Amino acid sequence: MVAKLEPAARADLLASLPGWREVDGRDAIEKTFRFADFKAAFAFMTRVAIAADGQDHHPEWSNVYNRVTILLSTHDADGLTERDGKLARVIEEAATGTGLQG
Amino acid sequence: MVAKLEPAARADLLASLPGWREVDGRDAIEKTFRFADFKAAFAFMTRVAIAADGQDHHPEWSNVYNRVTILLSTHDADGLTERDGKLARVIEEAATGTGLQG
Repeated sequence: MVAKLEPAARADLLASLPGWREVDGRDAIEKTFRFADFKAAFAFMTRVAIAADGQDHHPEWSNVYNRVTILLSTHDADGLTERDGKLARVIEEAATGTGLQG
Repeated sequence: MVAKLEPAARADLLASLPGWREVDGRDAIEKTFRFADFKAAFAFMTRVAIAADGQDHHPEWSNVYNRVTILLSTHDADGLTERDGKLARVIEEAATGTGLQG
């Protein structure tokens, strides 16, 4: 059983993840990524999907054309855990590797 | 410029697409698909992504583990058009080909 992050660990996590924000009404973090077009957005999603499945920890996410919004929370803990931080860091690498817009 | 579907064409479309429903407050249709697991859900999304990009008509969609919710509407027409029907039929084929749960 993975434990929810303590306040200090949570603050450290958010400070280390630019653009990620806490979600109103849920113990979760969220970020929206913008790419050049749909192909780039879906290429990013494919990288994230493979990484997430490898970690057995899956995002809640949506896509509209070149935008991908990702919410992370740990169902088993009903809140934010180190698993979310680990996946967020891999997502950041995937976004950089895919080529963010602007 | 593609035209919005007339009421009769809209009724025919919905009758031919089981499980799709009109969306409250938007001129759009929506359906949620459930698969065996995340791998199956993302395999389905990949098929849909390739087909959608080939049609240059993209869904608004979200995924949580084995569930994929897809909303279709035509931005250029600010409503439901034949493009949405065409993409919905391809999505149905992809879902059947991937293997829906239950």
